[in-house]
Amino acid sequence: MALQLIKKSMPYSKVALHMTRVSSVRLTSAYSNNSGRSHGHSNSSSWKKASLVGVGGLSAYLLYKNLPDEWKIKPNVNAYAKSLPVYSADDVAKHSTKSSGIWVSYKDSVYDISKFVDGHPGGEKILLGAGGPIDAFWNMYAVHQTPEVLEILQQYKIGLLSKKDQKPVDLNDPFANEPSRLPVFKINSKKPFNAEPPLEVLTDSYITPNELFYVRNHLPVPKIDLKSYRLEVKVGKRTVKLSLDDLKKRHKPVTITTTIQCAGNRRAEMSEYKTVKGLSWGPCAIGTARWTGVRLRDILLDAGIDAKDPNIKHIQFNGKDDDITKACYGGSIPISKAMAPDGDVILAYKMNGVDIPRDHGYPLRAIVPGYVGARNVKWVHQVTASHEESHSHWQRNDYKAFSPSTTFETADYKTAPSIQEMPVISAISSPAVNATVYEEQGHIEVKGYAWSGGGRDILRVDVSSDGGKTWQAANLTKDEPNADDSAHCWAWTLWNVDVPVKPGQKVELVCKAVDSAFNCQPEGMGAIWNLRGFLSNAWHRIPVTVAQDD
Amino acid sequence: MALQLIKKSMPYSKVALHMTRVSSVRLTSAYSNNSGRSHGHSNSSSWKKASLVGVGGLSAYLLYKNLPDEWKIKPNVNAYAKSLPVYSADDVAKHSTKSSGIWVSYKDSVYDISKFVDGHPGGEKILLGAGGPIDAFWNMYAVHQTPEVLEILQQYKIGLLSKKDQKPVDLNDPFANEPSRLPVFKINSKKPFNAEPPLEVLTDSYITPNELFYVRNHLPVPKIDLKSYRLEVKVGKRTVKLSLDDLKKRHKPVTITTTIQCAGNRRAEMSEYKTVKGLSWGPCAIGTARWTGVRLRDILLDAGIDAKDPNIKHIQFNGKDDDITKACYGGSIPISKAMAPDGDVILAYKMNGVDIPRDHGYPLRAIVPGYVGARNVKWVHQVTASHEESHSHWQRNDYKAFSPSTTFETADYKTAPSIQEMPVISAISSPAVNATVYEEQGHIEVKGYAWSGGGRDILRVDVSSDGGKTWQAANLTKDEPNADDSAHCWAWTLWNVDVPVKPGQKVELVCKAVDSAFNCQPEGMGAIWNLRGFLSNAWHRIPVTVAQDD
Repeated sequence: MALQLIKKSMPYSKVALHMTRVSSVRLTSAYSNNSGRSHGHSNSSSWKKASLVGVGGLSAYLLYKNLPDEWKIKPNVNAYAKSLPVYSADDVAKHSTKSSGIWVSYKDSVYDISKFVDGHPGGEKILLGAGGPIDAFWNMYAVHQTPEVLEILQQYKIGLLSKKDQKPVDLNDPFANEPSRLPVFKINSKKPFNAEPPLEVLTDSYITPNELFYVRNHLPVPKIDLKSYRLEVKVGKRTVKLSLDDLKKRHKPVTITTTIQCAGNRRAEMSEYKTVKGLSWGPCAIGTARWTGVRLRDILLDAGIDAKDPNIKHIQFNGKDDDITKACYGGSIPISKAMAPDGDVILAYKMNGVDIPRDHGYPLRAIVPGYVGARNVKWVHQVTASHEESHSHWQRNDYKAFSPSTTFETADYKTAPSIQEMPVISAISSPAVNATVYEEQGHIEVKGYAWSGGGRDILRVDVSSDGGKTWQAANLTKDEPNADDSAHCWAWTLWNVDVPVKPGQKVELVCKAVDSAFNCQPEGMGAIWNLRGFLSNAWHRIPVTVAQDD
Repeated sequence: MALQLIKKSMPYSKVALHMTRVSSVRLTSAYSNNSGRSHGHSNSSSWKKASLVGVGGLSAYLLYKNLPDEWKIKPNVNAYAKSLPVYSADDVAKHSTKSSGIWVSYKDSVYDISKFVDGHPGGEKILLGAGGPIDAFWNMYAVHQTPEVLEILQQYKIGLLSKKDQKPVDLNDPFANEPSRLPVFKINSKKPFNAEPPLEVLTDSYITPNELFYVRNHLPVPKIDLKSYRLEVKVGKRTVKLSLDDLKKRHKPVTITTTIQCAGNRRAEMSEYKTVKGLSWGPCAIGTARWTGVRLRDILLDAGIDAKDPNIKHIQFNGKDDDITKACYGGSIPISKAMAPDGDVILAYKMNGVDIPRDHGYPLRAIVPGYVGARNVKWVHQVTASHEESHSHWQRNDYKAFSPSTTFETADYKTAPSIQEMPVISAISSPAVNATVYEEQGHIEVKGYAWSGGGRDILRVDVSSDGGKTWQAANLTKDEPNADDSAHCWAWTLWNVDVPVKPGQKVELVCKAVDSAFNCQPEGMGAIWNLRGFLSNAWHRIPVTVAQDD
């Protein structure tokens, strides 16, 4: 809607006026949706400054004021002047590399975005559109469709696209086929859909109901027809193609119970400490399910893998979710994890006893216990044994963590290790932040979850009602014994404890967990802060007020 | 020497006077040597108060003042009165249980220590002496031979031992056969020998020379004759006995490089925060060696183990180091670790290419990579597949960690999990604490080590020269590729980095490491403090002064 408001004929003053009404937060959150990283060149610094201002809650007007000079609208450029040259699609196509300059077309105009590409918050994905029309990309990545982004584009306008090449853009919404979801979700992004369940229900059951399991999608949910669906397994020169039925017939089904957690879980708290880039997840981007499927190890052995082949170092997964260039979501895991008899990596077709819901990977999802959610690739249709990690943007240029002092300018994605195994974390699910609580015999009940990656169990959860001065060990609830086919502890521990309080007190509840390797959570966000807000596992702190006695 | 000073005829006033000259620190450190825990009964609390006073540096006189009333010398008791009854060794022997009362003899006297046993800082080991002479124990555990401990004993005197039963005590020092050691060690306890190398040499080589490897012994070093030495492997009803040659002939040798660390490494720092009980280790109770031996898995399979037998849950190790009751040092590990093909547990006979030195376990030592040092049992001569953990004192009543709010009174050793896999740690080896350093072009070099248990690699070490406000990632030095027969990273990472400083500044250098599961070290000791001072892995902080320019 905001897009339609900006008509070609709208004078700049009106655009500026309009901008003051648009929440600048939208711009930033939109841009930080998926990958959201820039590449450390001169432009990006200023762009980030602009973004930070946005997040700071100032108006888009201020955001505009803070734009780097080279991006500001120059008084001598009239984007709509008839005197601009006309280019053909062929002309545009000749400018698709950095050496030739990078041109794109959008609707009826041609833009030279050479100076912008390094500052693109979505990283090098912008190059997918180089030398051609970007209309379809902007339908795909709907985050671009804000007046602010359009205005930035206008500065790079160099001409008009010839009428013959102004093909009608395919306006089919790639998100038109999304599954329906419960309205209770807290939505962090609609397209792609990213949402978490409400905190007050998260730990009500040990197994998270499918309908309440957080959804972290990077692209539209694909619609997959089982009749034509095949899993391709590539080992060396051999490719095996298997229908879901083939898979079920050839291999024994196993059930593995795992907790899956997004690398960005609890990011909002880290951003409160100091702004980070990414979806603003609360503490509910985590859930536990029983997954039924077949062992990846069995599938790979069946396909002829030599587990001792020194050239095979990674197993890559590709999902069926793709963008208009057919670039799909992907990820990879080390061969050691994939082949470990007790690594429990499976390709699952059931989630909690039913076919995996579309939002969670129908018909097949890689389940990589103890690893970051991002490697639990949904809609998996290709499995490849390789000497290297997946080339996916999300493996190479995202889901990596840096030191607190690393900036987008100094971050070296090439040498930084991918996030795989996850650290210990815990969170309080009840009471809620700033709740007024009623004590009973001088106590209130505090509840929550704790989890660690790598199959490490939770040994202890310490809970404090005085901000961390004194601690009480919580009662721990584990999975039922022999509930699955694993010897490891891949799933969370729920906990509860009564802590002492006094009527009328304002108290800070705190929890921290210790895993079976005695790793513990850091006290604050400062020491683990990182530019993308991953692995936000500091002590969880919940201020509450204890009601006065009647 | 102190013992001889207190003659039978010495009046109490002189004893008291003498006590004021004896460092009370000796008493406490002596008592905290080995296991050093009491059992949470009424006496122990006051005992600990007394110990704390001792550590606080006050005199033994104050220590005495703080003793619980029931332990103080009663004016109406004259320990040396001739009118005391005379008991035979048989009389004493009838009092060896809590129900009959617990008597012991020492030299020419008999003592009823029933009221003391629950408060014994060495735990239930005291019961080993029940109903008999304790002279030999006191030679063994020489920590008792201080005037203060003798004085406590005197309060429980109930009679004299008959002359015929006053056999000459075997004064052979069980520590007479200790190997020789380099004088550079920082000795934390002489008998048993516990010592660490100087910090300034610790990270000078990736592999720690045998002669500089920290020594953590719980008992005297046994003298083992290879001719008679046999390894007993017990699986079910079957016992296999193997000479070292048998072992070498039957199984393929493998070399595994591991870092071994004492659970008490860096304990002194935790004690600075708040006093804990245990040997006062600095940051050098850690070292790295290449161990050559045979896989425990192979030995167990050879002995007929059924790895899927649900009744086999632990593999127990017994050492040849024992006390006068033949109770030996022991420990156990979970069957999953022992049998994992990539768990890399070996029984090693070589340390860095030579026969394992006596101090480190000659002729055979269990090497349990990624686990606490205590389970790397030295002088191992018995391996037992069992449904339960080792009954050793050090498995059941020591090497467990509790919450910061747990006291000796509330600690439940029965339900607390044993320390096995270790958390991430790092330390600065240079510069030294309070050193004056000379900057070069505005920088100084900082060096150290980092390690994590469970085969987790070190991904990053952050170093700060402003107390933790800003950080720099250090250069990491890993082992040579393919240096051993393991696919895992069981050994430490050495690191160095140049950090910015200004002449004349006093700065606090800080380091913290991140392991491959993104676990990180806690900022301070408060959140991980535990009564025995284990797992002291907070950020390492080193104050230094930067010299003024000339």
